[in-house]
Amino acid sequence: MPKILAIDAGGTTTRAAIVDASGQCLGYGRAGPGNLTSAGPDLALTSLVRAAQMAFDSAAGPKTTVSSTTISLAGASGEVSERAGKLLSPLGLTGDVHIEGDVLGTFFSGTFQPQGYALVVGTGAVAARIKDGHLDRVADGAGWLLGDVGSGYWIGHQVTRAAVAALDGRGPKTALTNLLLSSLELRSTPQHVDGRSAGLLQLMKTLYALRPVELSKFAPLAFQAGEDEVAINILRDAAVALAATLTAVHDHSVVDGPIVLGGSVLGAGMLNGSASWADPLKEVLKEAELLPVRDGVVGAAVLGLLRAGIQVDAGIFARVGESICRLQDGVSTAEE
Amino acid sequence: MPKILAIDAGGTTTRAAIVDASGQCLGYGRAGPGNLTSAGPDLALTSLVRAAQMAFDSAAGPKTTVSSTTISLAGASGEVSERAGKLLSPLGLTGDVHIEGDVLGTFFSGTFQPQGYALVVGTGAVAARIKDGHLDRVADGAGWLLGDVGSGYWIGHQVTRAAVAALDGRGPKTALTNLLLSSLELRSTPQHVDGRSAGLLQLMKTLYALRPVELSKFAPLAFQAGEDEVAINILRDAAVALAATLTAVHDHSVVDGPIVLGGSVLGAGMLNGSASWADPLKEVLKEAELLPVRDGVVGAAVLGLLRAGIQVDAGIFARVGESICRLQDGVSTAEE
Repeated sequence: MPKILAIDAGGTTTRAAIVDASGQCLGYGRAGPGNLTSAGPDLALTSLVRAAQMAFDSAAGPKTTVSSTTISLAGASGEVSERAGKLLSPLGLTGDVHIEGDVLGTFFSGTFQPQGYALVVGTGAVAARIKDGHLDRVADGAGWLLGDVGSGYWIGHQVTRAAVAALDGRGPKTALTNLLLSSLELRSTPQHVDGRSAGLLQLMKTLYALRPVELSKFAPLAFQAGEDEVAINILRDAAVALAATLTAVHDHSVVDGPIVLGGSVLGAGMLNGSASWADPLKEVLKEAELLPVRDGVVGAAVLGLLRAGIQVDAGIFARVGESICRLQDGVSTAEE
Repeated sequence: MPKILAIDAGGTTTRAAIVDASGQCLGYGRAGPGNLTSAGPDLALTSLVRAAQMAFDSAAGPKTTVSSTTISLAGASGEVSERAGKLLSPLGLTGDVHIEGDVLGTFFSGTFQPQGYALVVGTGAVAARIKDGHLDRVADGAGWLLGDVGSGYWIGHQVTRAAVAALDGRGPKTALTNLLLSSLELRSTPQHVDGRSAGLLQLMKTLYALRPVELSKFAPLAFQAGEDEVAINILRDAAVALAATLTAVHDHSVVDGPIVLGGSVLGAGMLNGSASWADPLKEVLKEAELLPVRDGVVGAAVLGLLRAGIQVDAGIFARVGESICRLQDGVSTAEE
């Protein structure tokens, strides 16, 4: 009976599961950031290997081998795939390493049906229409510089720009300024240097020392700013953009099915609560069956099983989800 | 009688002039890009030295020496200043190298009065209030990632994002798409790969291969797009932002004086013509005496003379401008 290794490489956490043909999860592991863009390839691959090692170590019985590995990973090149294969093979892998985009991994974490939609909003933002188990139409996912509108990076970037504009006297005062300064352990100061606020110069220096994608870590500040108008406008613009991204792929005359919702930003506040700034996005979602998922590891397992020729039905899908969940919570409890 | 070397390091051209205490320009030279951010320090310093060498070579009579050098250069650190000094000293320099921000260089290219305002919109965007010959208040100039709203970079970045969104089906169709594809010698194609337009994937790959600041080269496309609504909205947003930047420093109750306008974007279209998208900026400018300047080399010379203890009056200022202009046009004619 074939076993497969499934890995979901996320922005803050990488998850790995070994699953048999019945959908039973035999081993589970978790490690740090696995996103190629935000973590960089070296750290991302290290996280992949760590999570996989932990999954093999936690599998009971004699040394486990798997017949193939499926990794749900955004923006991977052939080179990354080859490096991942070389790093993973000593762990007990005998088959090929297949890398799928994170969108399919998210989609199949929510459903075993071969069609529907996915909206994934984490560090990046992407929507997809899935047909016959494949990507039929994708919108955004264009990366931090050219797109990913409404993503964690996008929101974090707007937060920093709003704080800089406020300290500079060009933009309205906002609660985001002090939230940002505090999060960086900086203080606003009345001193001026060459016509500029010394606090602003220090803030700019600190922010330019980061890699641009790291600005995504300031996205939570927009959700923490309460009734602040500048923050609400940023979140409303994000919701409008995400609605446009989903609308670009969403067409019931082409494909009917659920909308799977994934990624840290959708989970962490974009759709929770009753805030009216989220209305533009809620409006687009309201007619659909919504399936929020917490990560893409179940989907990576489903993709691996499908690739191994196994027909994933409701029973297998439920077993994958439940058995991963049980081990996942075990790992979570052990770590906390 | 002291002579000074004045250098203006611009985004596309670096200019150098040797000026005596009467304001007479004795030698003039010109070289390539000198902006530290867009050209990088190595190319920028090479351009500085070339322009200076050409100025020394063109000065008539026995070998010229100067007692100090003033460089109008955005975003220079102490390290850059030291490197510039080391590179320039073999050319005939005996004094110190002083680096001033490009805003003061632009300001004193338009006036010898010690107070007023400057708005410089090239690759970056910055406004300043000048008082007693010094920067009293500066707004924006916060760089490509955190500010420079309405700048050449900002407009070029919006142009690329608008074209990507249009090809992706998320944003409205725009004439900018074909202008951008043509400028990169790419073509739109009906093929799709994994749910995405192959033309879009090729465009994204091409744009991500550039350094972000290089996106400023697409700013002219917004001015070329005619009545295209997306382009007009980008330019209107730029004009609104530049008006806010100038308003943040503009206060007649603190300082009265002319507004000196510099930088390639202001010169190349932002204020020319009768387009209504520029109204928000024109509204802020309308009461003021406007002094457009074509570069900052006159201002660098004025700053050098002031630093040498020379009182720059209307006569000296006029002589600096006229004599540089004469040699500048000579260089320009000789090159064309």
